[in-house]
Amino acid sequence: MGKGGQGSDAAAAAAGEVEENMAAWLVAKNTLKIMPFKLPPLGPHDVRVRMKAVGICGSDVHYLREMRIAHFVVKEPMVIGHECAGVIEAVGSGVKHLAAGDRVALEPGISCWRCRHCRGGRYNLCDDMKFFATPPVHGSLANQIVHPADLCFKLPDNVSLEEGAMCEPLSVGVHACRRAGVGPETAVLIMGAGPIGLVALLAARAFGAPRVAIVDVDEHRLGVAKSLGADAAVKVSTRPEDAAEEVARIQAALGGAEIDVSLDCAGFSKTLATALEATRPGGRVCLVGMGHNEMTVPLTSAACREVDLVGIFRYKDTWPLCIEFLRSGKVDVKPLITHRFGFSQREVEEAFEVSARGRDAIKVMFNL
Amino acid sequence: MGKGGQGSDAAAAAAGEVEENMAAWLVAKNTLKIMPFKLPPLGPHDVRVRMKAVGICGSDVHYLREMRIAHFVVKEPMVIGHECAGVIEAVGSGVKHLAAGDRVALEPGISCWRCRHCRGGRYNLCDDMKFFATPPVHGSLANQIVHPADLCFKLPDNVSLEEGAMCEPLSVGVHACRRAGVGPETAVLIMGAGPIGLVALLAARAFGAPRVAIVDVDEHRLGVAKSLGADAAVKVSTRPEDAAEEVARIQAALGGAEIDVSLDCAGFSKTLATALEATRPGGRVCLVGMGHNEMTVPLTSAACREVDLVGIFRYKDTWPLCIEFLRSGKVDVKPLITHRFGFSQREVEEAFEVSARGRDAIKVMFNL
Amino acid sequence: MGKGGQGSDAAAAAAGEVEENMAAWLVAKNTLKIMPFKLPPLGPHDVRVRMKAVGICGSDVHYLREMRIAHFVVKEPMVIGHECAGVIEAVGSGVKHLAAGDRVALEPGISCWRCRHCRGGRYNLCDDMKFFATPPVHGSLANQIVHPADLCFKLPDNVSLEEGAMCEPLSVGVHACRRAGVGPETAVLIMGAGPIGLVALLAARAFGAPRVAIVDVDEHRLGVAKSLGADAAVKVSTRPEDAAEEVARIQAALGGAEIDVSLDCAGFSKTLATALEATRPGGRVCLVGMGHNEMTVPLTSAACREVDLVGIFRYKDTWPLCIEFLRSGKVDVKPLITHRFGFSQREVEEAFEVSARGRDAIKVMFNL
Amino acid sequence: MGKGGQGSDAAAAAAGEVEENMAAWLVAKNTLKIMPFKLPPLGPHDVRVRMKAVGICGSDVHYLREMRIAHFVVKEPMVIGHECAGVIEAVGSGVKHLAAGDRVALEPGISCWRCRHCRGGRYNLCDDMKFFATPPVHGSLANQIVHPADLCFKLPDNVSLEEGAMCEPLSVGVHACRRAGVGPETAVLIMGAGPIGLVALLAARAFGAPRVAIVDVDEHRLGVAKSLGADAAVKVSTRPEDAAEEVARIQAALGGAEIDVSLDCAGFSKTLATALEATRPGGRVCLVGMGHNEMTVPLTSAACREVDLVGIFRYKDTWPLCIEFLRSGKVDVKPLITHRFGFSQREVEEAFEVSARGRDAIKVMFNL
Repeated sequence: MGKGGQGSDAAAAAAGEVEENMAAWLVAKNTLKIMPFKLPPLGPHDVRVRMKAVGICGSDVHYLREMRIAHFVVKEPMVIGHECAGVIEAVGSGVKHLAAGDRVALEPGISCWRCRHCRGGRYNLCDDMKFFATPPVHGSLANQIVHPADLCFKLPDNVSLEEGAMCEPLSVGVHACRRAGVGPETAVLIMGAGPIGLVALLAARAFGAPRVAIVDVDEHRLGVAKSLGADAAVKVSTRPEDAAEEVARIQAALGGAEIDVSLDCAGFSKTLATALEATRPGGRVCLVGMGHNEMTVPLTSAACREVDLVGIFRYKDTWPLCIEFLRSGKVDVKPLITHRFGFSQREVEEAFEVSARGRDAIKVMFNL
Repeated sequence: MGKGGQGSDAAAAAAGEVEENMAAWLVAKNTLKIMPFKLPPLGPHDVRVRMKAVGICGSDVHYLREMRIAHFVVKEPMVIGHECAGVIEAVGSGVKHLAAGDRVALEPGISCWRCRHCRGGRYNLCDDMKFFATPPVHGSLANQIVHPADLCFKLPDNVSLEEGAMCEPLSVGVHACRRAGVGPETAVLIMGAGPIGLVALLAARAFGAPRVAIVDVDEHRLGVAKSLGADAAVKVSTRPEDAAEEVARIQAALGGAEIDVSLDCAGFSKTLATALEATRPGGRVCLVGMGHNEMTVPLTSAACREVDLVGIFRYKDTWPLCIEFLRSGKVDVKPLITHRFGFSQREVEEAFEVSARGRDAIKVMFNL
Repeated sequence: MGKGGQGSDAAAAAAGEVEENMAAWLVAKNTLKIMPFKLPPLGPHDVRVRMKAVGICGSDVHYLREMRIAHFVVKEPMVIGHECAGVIEAVGSGVKHLAAGDRVALEPGISCWRCRHCRGGRYNLCDDMKFFATPPVHGSLANQIVHPADLCFKLPDNVSLEEGAMCEPLSVGVHACRRAGVGPETAVLIMGAGPIGLVALLAARAFGAPRVAIVDVDEHRLGVAKSLGADAAVKVSTRPEDAAEEVARIQAALGGAEIDVSLDCAGFSKTLATALEATRPGGRVCLVGMGHNEMTVPLTSAACREVDLVGIFRYKDTWPLCIEFLRSGKVDVKPLITHRFGFSQREVEEAFEVSARGRDAIKVMFNL
Repeated sequence: MGKGGQGSDAAAAAAGEVEENMAAWLVAKNTLKIMPFKLPPLGPHDVRVRMKAVGICGSDVHYLREMRIAHFVVKEPMVIGHECAGVIEAVGSGVKHLAAGDRVALEPGISCWRCRHCRGGRYNLCDDMKFFATPPVHGSLANQIVHPADLCFKLPDNVSLEEGAMCEPLSVGVHACRRAGVGPETAVLIMGAGPIGLVALLAARAFGAPRVAIVDVDEHRLGVAKSLGADAAVKVSTRPEDAAEEVARIQAALGGAEIDVSLDCAGFSKTLATALEATRPGGRVCLVGMGHNEMTVPLTSAACREVDLVGIFRYKDTWPLCIEFLRSGKVDVKPLITHRFGFSQREVEEAFEVSARGRDAIKVMFNL
């Protein structure tokens, strides 16, 4: 970046004005448009990042289809995208730990640091969170964005920008494992072998889980999970009445080892009921997926065995650990990246279609 | 006890043979009979206790009505009763900390100390628990019983035997508060003002909860709860569609203070849904009551606010704390004892009827 | 700032310009001078507070005597004082929860919210903390100061401003109790009955400690501790060779109850050795006082009983709990305030002399 | 005991009577004698085990040299040895999970299961522990011993009996890592590269520590540690005055990564002081070694950074995890076994000499 913080900022800003910054805007149901995206000024603790790799998440697809998720409604055109990594273009005057040219992965949520949740170390529950591509906050599928420096994490040389972008979905698995207490003494059951189930599998392995079983209705997904290191892959139905027999089959598939922790990455009444019943007394179930909101499950039976049920909302403090997992090779996310696209109008549309079709597409990645 | 452990044991044993030991046997649905109850020999780590106060629990009534609870089925006549205190008559040769004449409260469950739960400090989850009046194990509504000395806790002079018997229901409240993390920083909501809701209220206060709200469908019960120290008592309906409005009313009743912990002492879909919705992000709900087994509740919404759901199975290591609460006056269980009966056939029948009618009867106590 | 509630702010602001803001400056060893103190501009998340009650802390006296504590050296004149409460004069444009006229207690430390400690919920360990009267940051013994609104906590009507100022020393006791895990099941030993030992005693009681013993070399202090609720007060010597006998005496004073937690509020080799030896296997000792830095203590013997040793650095998230303790009456700090002074040059000097003499002076308070 | 699997038990029992059971007895300072060892009767929950692999521990050597450790004094001849594995010869009538012929590793301590420590899940602190080769309890360097079945853990096919015996020293590392909270997010510093430092290193790796530095005064030991997977090995002196410079060198050796946890496996004032100073604010130090009892260390400085100090006494619930680590290959203890001896009078004497010389001998193992 040449010389002197401020001076180079000015230069970078000048450069920023010359190039027209483009982003993928969600403008209406099923309609994404690449259009100019004016960046805010660079604050003293901000950096400007040139995006290099942005993944598509199921929530992005959901916003595209419905223009809403729960009570978050897209009322104005909004830039989409939140799984991302890039290269620093400019740093604010107060930024010490980053410099232009640094390759970074971005944590998408800006919390207030004033509410009791932030002060108490659970900033993911912040009352006033500003999160990429959650209306009315813009996302990161753009040539450049401005973001707080503290949410940009430098990548080691042996971690690619695409892998950096994968820190976001991997963070979901990491946060689930932390809340569920996964470690070298916990055999783990994962319900659902979709993208989230698979990052949960990778995270559980990296946390040292000695045995991991995974369950899905789809043979192909189960095959992927086996190739990623699941000890047992169990095909199940969607019929609630099969749950008891499936619990027995799951337990048998782990050779009779007790299941200490279950991660329900599907989130339906049946998957949660199965997880609760399969988990040993004193164990823990973490609800990760969000298939149903209201669920009908045997909670008293779980309570009487002191099987705890915890949930997760996004993640907190996960980037350093994800990067460490990638650096050390404890986690390999590369097999999850099944499709790649450039950043043109046509390719953006096609990429979302591929992602929405699901199944053989696990993670669809833009290379900008 | 006179002289020398062994010698006095022999004398006591002799006395035990002269007197016919009687107990209240559950012999068929709705049929209790006072009949002779032969005691097992006194092992080296056992004591023989003359029962003085035995309370009736909802589970006792349930066994009387149905001859079963869940998968526990009464197939042979069984002595009923498990909330009890008495006076030591004889101690085994290896017992050091107790002597004849000591007044003790009895913890009802004998765990195996060999399974992983026992070894890990969660003996209430023991794979092989022998628990008073849980078939096929006999209970304690008898003149005398034999019990492990380690499960008999000496009462201070200022704690009566009836209060000692109340350690058992109080233990449920204590274990719930421990698992839910109740302390001086947790405002607490209690669903249900029945006997368990009331001991939960007393326990929450003793753990230092700064504010406690309690909810019930019954005005009388709410009045009792207020008199026992609830800050707010909120009358609700049984209609699920009222839950949202009731949550708002509950929160308002605490003056806008956030609810950190909820203890659902009713255990119905509606009460649990209310508890989950009323609890702040990052808070905790403990399921104590067992109204429904299958529950239909908004679990995803709770998970997304990281409201954890834990359950309890009985209790562990609670007697010393209960006795300390009674000794110090932090808990006063005396107002809960609403009815007293002697130990005759007629009175036993009448006592169970009064207890089953509920409402104005909170705790029905036998004085033997 | 508009009108309404803010009208008085405007007036106050106007007044603020007219009135010359004065503060007590530490200018040299043993030299305090009341001199003008120019306030910084009011940021959007700041408030301006008229100080009403400011206490003197041992560290204030230490700075006055030595112009340094450890590696913190007073190189430029510095406003002293950090135990304080006052009335809001003006609020920044982004402040929602406070208004002019509100009575508030002030938490003295401004943390960065960017370092890993802040993000992880242990902001007291912040790498870049700005703390009242810790060079080069000014303190709060002044007519008015500017402070972040989030560090100003509204006092209930039944809590006085002097009590509000006592939240600071009380926070030390609260943080110690939290780190040591004090609760209704922990008998507590406190080494030292000085101001910090006394707030630790009050805090331990409020956390529910069933029994508290306190130890000192001074009969008068022990008498105060007894009057504040200690169950046992044990006079000891400063001779290391007495420790074993004193441990026995301390344990006897608690009637044989095991000591679960010890809070060493003196911080000398002998007091810490006594605390470690007196605490039961599996218990915890918290080092609060800072008499010695290097200590010679039997750590292996403690380790072999798994007696953990933790320390505290200031406190975090304690004001709401302190205020709740004061509101509910669980803590009464009023008996600790032994001396009061006005805010004149003469009185400031005299107040520090009284505080430095110690013993019968527990807390010396300025009323501004 | 009937027939079938038990038939061989009967045969084994018969054989047991014919064969004279021999053991290595500590009879006086520096004097071990192989002499007959009469076994107690086989209780219903016991097993009789033919010892196959027994390792020598530093404490065995210490007893041999001194006839005491701390307050444990060898007053009567005592069978030595406590790191062991063998093959089941006979099982008691109540034993379900083991059968003759099973290969098992033995946990050496029999706890009372009646004291509050046992009940609370910290049975290693048991008031009445009976531990192999801790006077007056006999050890396990014998042809056969009788032991509770619950303390015998079946070995998988791919784990040898020698590896099984190594579960004992490995348990020390495992318990230290658990108490210190070692996991995938904790960079670890280990003071001392002797046998315990090395098992701590292996355990820390298996718990997922991303980076481990180890420190010793001996180049050879450091070389072994490097070959076992330490990221950094730092040679230090025994001079206290070098500590500050060494802390800087240790931190540099980890590339500037903060040290979250330190395990002091030496236990001298200097090693502990170094560990305390090198550990980051909010980190944890575990005292494992027992070089000194009284230590002179900068505890106030550690307390002010909230660096916690915990110790360990033996271990609890570690065998299943150790066996899992060995099964999965996460831990390879084989390189630690440097010397092997048979079970003759001459070899026993020689083995203890080799072990006592230390340095190139890490673990000396008997094959019986």
